[in-house]
Amino acid sequence: MKIYKNPARSRWGGLCARPAKPPRALDAVVAEVFDKVAAKGDEALKAYTRRFDGVSIDKVAMPAGQVERLAGRVSPDLRRAIDQAYENIRKFHQSQEPTPRESIETFPGVLCWRERRAIERVGLYVPGGSAPLVSTVLMLGVPAQLAGCQAITLCTPPTPDGTVGPAICYAALKIGATTVVRVGGIQAIAALAIGTESVGRVDKIFGPGNQYVTAAKQYAASNARTAIDMPAGPSEVLVVADGLADPEFVASDLLSQAEHGPDSQAVLLTDDYVLARAVKKAAARQLKTLPRSEITGQALSGSFCVVFDSIGLALEFSNAYAPEHLILAMRKAGSYVNKVSSAGSVFVGDYSPVTAGDYASGTNHTLPTDGWARSSSGVSLDSFVKQVTFQKLTRKGLSGLAPTITVLAQAEGLEAHARSVRLRLEEI
Amino acid sequence: MKIYKNPARSRWGGLCARPAKPPRALDAVVAEVFDKVAAKGDEALKAYTRRFDGVSIDKVAMPAGQVERLAGRVSPDLRRAIDQAYENIRKFHQSQEPTPRESIETFPGVLCWRERRAIERVGLYVPGGSAPLVSTVLMLGVPAQLAGCQAITLCTPPTPDGTVGPAICYAALKIGATTVVRVGGIQAIAALAIGTESVGRVDKIFGPGNQYVTAAKQYAASNARTAIDMPAGPSEVLVVADGLADPEFVASDLLSQAEHGPDSQAVLLTDDYVLARAVKKAAARQLKTLPRSEITGQALSGSFCVVFDSIGLALEFSNAYAPEHLILAMRKAGSYVNKVSSAGSVFVGDYSPVTAGDYASGTNHTLPTDGWARSSSGVSLDSFVKQVTFQKLTRKGLSGLAPTITVLAQAEGLEAHARSVRLRLEEI
Repeated sequence: MKIYKNPARSRWGGLCARPAKPPRALDAVVAEVFDKVAAKGDEALKAYTRRFDGVSIDKVAMPAGQVERLAGRVSPDLRRAIDQAYENIRKFHQSQEPTPRESIETFPGVLCWRERRAIERVGLYVPGGSAPLVSTVLMLGVPAQLAGCQAITLCTPPTPDGTVGPAICYAALKIGATTVVRVGGIQAIAALAIGTESVGRVDKIFGPGNQYVTAAKQYAASNARTAIDMPAGPSEVLVVADGLADPEFVASDLLSQAEHGPDSQAVLLTDDYVLARAVKKAAARQLKTLPRSEITGQALSGSFCVVFDSIGLALEFSNAYAPEHLILAMRKAGSYVNKVSSAGSVFVGDYSPVTAGDYASGTNHTLPTDGWARSSSGVSLDSFVKQVTFQKLTRKGLSGLAPTITVLAQAEGLEAHARSVRLRLEEI
Repeated sequence: MKIYKNPARSRWGGLCARPAKPPRALDAVVAEVFDKVAAKGDEALKAYTRRFDGVSIDKVAMPAGQVERLAGRVSPDLRRAIDQAYENIRKFHQSQEPTPRESIETFPGVLCWRERRAIERVGLYVPGGSAPLVSTVLMLGVPAQLAGCQAITLCTPPTPDGTVGPAICYAALKIGATTVVRVGGIQAIAALAIGTESVGRVDKIFGPGNQYVTAAKQYAASNARTAIDMPAGPSEVLVVADGLADPEFVASDLLSQAEHGPDSQAVLLTDDYVLARAVKKAAARQLKTLPRSEITGQALSGSFCVVFDSIGLALEFSNAYAPEHLILAMRKAGSYVNKVSSAGSVFVGDYSPVTAGDYASGTNHTLPTDGWARSSSGVSLDSFVKQVTFQKLTRKGLSGLAPTITVLAQAEGLEAHARSVRLRLEEI
């Protein structure tokens, strides 16, 4: 972990840059899989699952009875944990439901309003990998359920025995998934974007994944008119800490981010050089006893610390970096909340580790990485709905606005536009 | 205008399909322009403006004094029209400001909340083309201003004399643009995404444009981590009309959409064959006296009408099509609002032509085309802000959630995550 001291502003850009993304050499592979899935449907999904996952599946979609049977096998501890996380996530996302608004009269006789509509068909991608990500099911499924999406299709790579793990099944039932599909990777995204005999085409695809899944999502957005939640990048944490922060706590937060993968970003900003040194030492010690110490150590060695003259400067840098997760580990941390302008999710004070938000506090863990927090929000109830605008004008309303409309339409050279108004107001 | 009668549901997909997009052969050109702008900055912008627009500009950004001087030349009629449109757009977008929410306690000792933050730096692209689109300045600028964006950079191609039209200048001042840049096309998008000596890099780019601008925006999103409002496609209207609708009104709406360009989409759905014939006839007659009759006629000949057995079926089809603009031209049109699930903006009743929303009623005219209304909303105040989530746990709150968090972290094989919680709760 490298420590920088008071870098000149001209160097901030370089420090804020994330590692370059691998070139998009995957496009040809992705296009081939999409074409095959379009041509062969379920057969293609089964063939790719055999080839890429080494697993034979008889049916692509899990029969409902099987999902229920498997869900019954979750241990009581894990069931309780899923239930509690579900409740908290539900409470927080329910609070995002906006107060319904009346229509407003922008001009006499001109009523305008918005109405929310659920996105009808959504696809949730749940990565398999080293461990099934049951938390992803909750983070994507709870807002989909609250929004009232009609079809919720969950795709996840099969287990070696060709099924889906009990915890995923249990969570899928809780969030009201309408179909559980035991297919992962590019072929899963292709199925969601195009549709097959047993996987209905969806309007929007959510969920994290490896570089193949990410490339497939971007391909679906460009070529199959399927919306995606966001481009997913390596996980990130930025901690702003003053001299009173507990170095052990801070080190544990950096490590839990680094644990995600060798390309995870962990950054510490502080106004206290002694703290920086103490965190570095604590991280090295804590690392030794971690089971994923190799991956974690790799990520940690690529991470850095910047010692600034003041916490104010540190927060300015943080906004320029726009981290996925931001921890405020200062005395009176709450008083700095107003200074945060760009971050995915913010953790305030000593007892708010990122892990709490990853699993159970109720906030969403699907967040913008790679600087996208400058312009984008994490997944929320809003991600599963559209806002449709409506307007209703009376004849008098249209008549009152007619001079404005026709002058502007003619200034833009659009005569048919002007006429669609004038014609309605001609005396009969 | 082709008329279909009661097509089988299996044919709906084909009817809902938009014309295939031209292949993305522009990527190489776009990449070259981006590279040049990155290397040469303002010089590259001037060179491209000479080459592509045939105009020499001395400075890329308009001096503030010049913008004010030019704005003073707007005719009183046009000024009044801009003022009125500005007021209405402002009122409607202000009504989108959400009621501030308190934080909610999802679990004892666990507080979660969201706060809105303006996107700091936004770029508004205003196409030149046959006529300057002053309405675009208002539709993008008003919500940017209301959101509180700090830097609002407006880019538009220069007029032949190397300046920017008076109406654009007047509107730019109204919406509080911080810089007016007289550059258009790919090079304008490159400047916004990368930044040059006189054009600050932005976080999100908004605005319509031709295929070059659209390709450049997509390139900026994929390669320069710059957010974009939406992929822009040809304009669309879908009218649902019953036998009591006025065929002249309906025809004028189809024509005003067709006027945008030869690839515009205009669709009529009805339950009355007689109306369909009457609209077709009226459109042909109205077309004759339009100044842009060639373009408009081309678009009209590519458009179609479907006669269904019922208005209910027509609305089902409309939702499957997901039009940018939807006109409800039925008796008691308001009673069908609930049945609309996918559309960009909806115009209710006889006196609500799309043109009203294009210019002056207050709703935004930057809307999803090409079926994206299934998953996306038009531009609104929301497009210029981010929602940042926050959480603050007490020691007791973390302690209460610890079993849930650690069980889930361990189920996912993430030991460092579990430790970041346990370590905070160890007795001192």
